[in-house]
Amino acid sequence: MHSFEELAIAFKNKFEVKHFPSEPQSLYESCDYFLSIGGKRIRPVMCLMGNELFDEINPDTWHVAAAIELFHNFTLMHDDIMDAAPLRRGMQTVHTKYGNNTALLGGDVMLVVAYDYLNKISNTYLHKVITLFNRTAREVCEGQQMDMDFEKQQAVGLDAYIKMIELKTSVLLAASLQLGAILGGASEGNRQHIYEFGKNLGIAFQVQDDYLDAFGDPSRFGKQVGGDIIANKKTFLVIHALESCTGGQLDELKRLMKSNEDNKVGKVLALFRECGVDTWASGLKDKYIGQAEFHLEEVAVSAVRKEPLRNLVKFLVQRDH
Amino acid sequence: MHSFEELAIAFKNKFEVKHFPSEPQSLYESCDYFLSIGGKRIRPVMCLMGNELFDEINPDTWHVAAAIELFHNFTLMHDDIMDAAPLRRGMQTVHTKYGNNTALLGGDVMLVVAYDYLNKISNTYLHKVITLFNRTAREVCEGQQMDMDFEKQQAVGLDAYIKMIELKTSVLLAASLQLGAILGGASEGNRQHIYEFGKNLGIAFQVQDDYLDAFGDPSRFGKQVGGDIIANKKTFLVIHALESCTGGQLDELKRLMKSNEDNKVGKVLALFRECGVDTWASGLKDKYIGQAEFHLEEVAVSAVRKEPLRNLVKFLVQRDH
Repeated sequence: MHSFEELAIAFKNKFEVKHFPSEPQSLYESCDYFLSIGGKRIRPVMCLMGNELFDEINPDTWHVAAAIELFHNFTLMHDDIMDAAPLRRGMQTVHTKYGNNTALLGGDVMLVVAYDYLNKISNTYLHKVITLFNRTAREVCEGQQMDMDFEKQQAVGLDAYIKMIELKTSVLLAASLQLGAILGGASEGNRQHIYEFGKNLGIAFQVQDDYLDAFGDPSRFGKQVGGDIIANKKTFLVIHALESCTGGQLDELKRLMKSNEDNKVGKVLALFRECGVDTWASGLKDKYIGQAEFHLEEVAVSAVRKEPLRNLVKFLVQRDH
Repeated sequence: MHSFEELAIAFKNKFEVKHFPSEPQSLYESCDYFLSIGGKRIRPVMCLMGNELFDEINPDTWHVAAAIELFHNFTLMHDDIMDAAPLRRGMQTVHTKYGNNTALLGGDVMLVVAYDYLNKISNTYLHKVITLFNRTAREVCEGQQMDMDFEKQQAVGLDAYIKMIELKTSVLLAASLQLGAILGGASEGNRQHIYEFGKNLGIAFQVQDDYLDAFGDPSRFGKQVGGDIIANKKTFLVIHALESCTGGQLDELKRLMKSNEDNKVGKVLALFRECGVDTWASGLKDKYIGQAEFHLEEVAVSAVRKEPLRNLVKFLVQRDH
């Protein structure tokens, strides 16, 4: 068994190969470029961890892990077009650097190459792996569509927002673990628990992300605090505030969301605190961490095998108390 | 064994099912809409014919045929975005009707659903089928990229143009036949011949398409003659004219291509005829039909089994003599 960090290094080394042909360069250069931007490769490592929870690493898991990472990058390339995002991890997005058409086609071909990797695995689990991979791929597309739909809506309910986050973010983390578990020979019950562990962890991570954007320590968080507030992004915090603030506070929040006045961030944060949004968000995160931990406990393997995943929880989401 | 027409009806009936979930409607409605526009469903029927050349229809072939048709529609949805095409078969394209983002995401999810259909087939041929399907998918993307690259280039050589047509159009026809052949238990040699048959037939079809756009009988052809000339599209005819006209004729052709003067179409067509482009194109088409027929002859099955494919050649490409 290996830690997240050990598996991350091992995956990075295995993944540093040429995934695409050389020609036409005008197409494949965009794919090479996007992969070179890097990332933490959390999903493929979770796939490897899902495998190691049950058994020694099945050589096929490396292929599935590569497919997951390529799929994830495909979604980012296309999301960046849809969101008209100029930067990703501080670098130019593909559509900014090479144009929308190449980013579209580069994403398409990256998805096909993801299936090339899936097709490398042996018959034993091939159907099962593609079934889960495809269901997840559809759900991620649905999540992105819901996200775009929400941007056009005035009010979004908390349940609908959680559903969107589940689809757009969590199911891929959950499926990464479960795909590894399938290749590790896990039983149906264990597979379900590891999936639920990943799904709840993913929601907790998103709650934390929204929380830190508003209340994080700028020196530790590494990006501008209040970015979501300035961009009027729908987040766990705004949605809860709109549901829980009343009277004058609610009016003031709605007014601030339409304005670009000085110290907008400070004023919104003050309102969030007055309405108890910060405490609520911490509690919500803890609730999802608790649910994740419950499902990890329920996986029927020895406690020592779960150690790397317990550490992953600490790495991804910090408890406040 | 069945004729193209019989299989087309059978496929149409089988394909008239719900391929996508209902929610989110904002995503899947675009996919349903695009499939409802219809089309001749040539590729899935070729898949069924490729199967029947060797054996009774393998039930898995219906799944692969559906996957091929969904893949083809995915490429059209994305190509229409890239080409900013307002209409497809006389109907609004998806990006015109629903916006670029939905057309992008709808295409993505349609490709995933294509793989759902591939994943329905039994283990026996699953790896082989995905391998050929994926290689073809990558090639179709490469062909689209070459096509876009050519639009920006002044001069395109005939060999490069043929390569682009092969990738963008022919390989999918070839692969449709070969996928059917694989599921019909064909030998490696027979599979190669049926692939080459489809590839050459596809090129012949494209030459004919370019020819008819310029020299076709408007009453029989059913669309505006000279549309490619008005749009300054690169075609077999223009590329050959630029390579074979000389002196004053070449200068005049280049001048006309930059102009929008009255009777531009008539003047370009006159030049094409003076340079013998019409005769050359007929000969080129016949050459590719001949190569296709050679490979069909080489397939080691009884002549009677080849009858439907011989009729398909007549249906798709007419000999001029």
